Amino acid sequence: MSDCIFCKIARGDVPAQIVHQDGQVTAFRDVNPQAPVHLLVIPNQHVGSAAELGPGNGPLLAAMLVVANRMAEGEGVAGTGYRLVLNVGADAGQSVPHLHLHLLGGRPLAWPPG
Amino acid sequence: MSDCIFCKIARGDVPAQIVHQDGQVTAFRDVNPQAPVHLLVIPNQHVGSAAELGPGNGPLLAAMLVVANRMAEGEGVAGTGYRLVLNVGADAGQSVPHLHLHLLGGRPLAWPPG
Repeated sequence: MSDCIFCKIARGDVPAQIVHQDGQVTAFRDVNPQAPVHLLVIPNQHVGSAAELGPGNGPLLAAMLVVANRMAEGEGVAGTGYRLVLNVGADAGQSVPHLHLHLLGGRPLAWPPG
Repeated sequence: MSDCIFCKIARGDVPAQIVHQDGQVTAFRDVNPQAPVHLLVIPNQHVGSAAELGPGNGPLLAAMLVVANRMAEGEGVAGTGYRLVLNVGADAGQSVPHLHLHLLGGRPLAWPPG
């Protein structure tokens, strides 16, 4: 979508601290980090939220998870632990209507998760 | 795994408030709910955590997300919003070493997510 900020980041039209990009997904640092490690993993192609994911999105989901796990390794939190979060809609505080997987780590994460 | 509590729930050997079960995944109410709606979606077959997911797990991931979205509809939180959470390891407080997707909704969820 031409006016979507995360589409623009994936296309390189808006700058971000990108830590990984391939043909399917882009990973970059959250501009308002909530933990020592706080990355976002997004599909390059626009998907509004996790609520839009269907049976055919397995390859995309696997690609996002594989990148998240690799980033956790690279950021040094694979051993200590990390939390993966998908927000859908207002009660979850979804701030950008483009599917994004939060990866948080580097500190103990409290419960409940919000 | 014979001694895994979530494997036992998936097999029906330990009781739980199951809200959905199919050949791949089981969904049930968290025994210690943190929101008006708090379900867990697990694979029936043992997977230790999201860190073990690889490129071949797309179908499983899609199945888990599709069930989560359907449960959000059924629980009446699809419109208001919900949060999906995967915990990996100690810093995230992963309490059971069997992959489980938390679905929380029914109230505004704070940020950060823990």
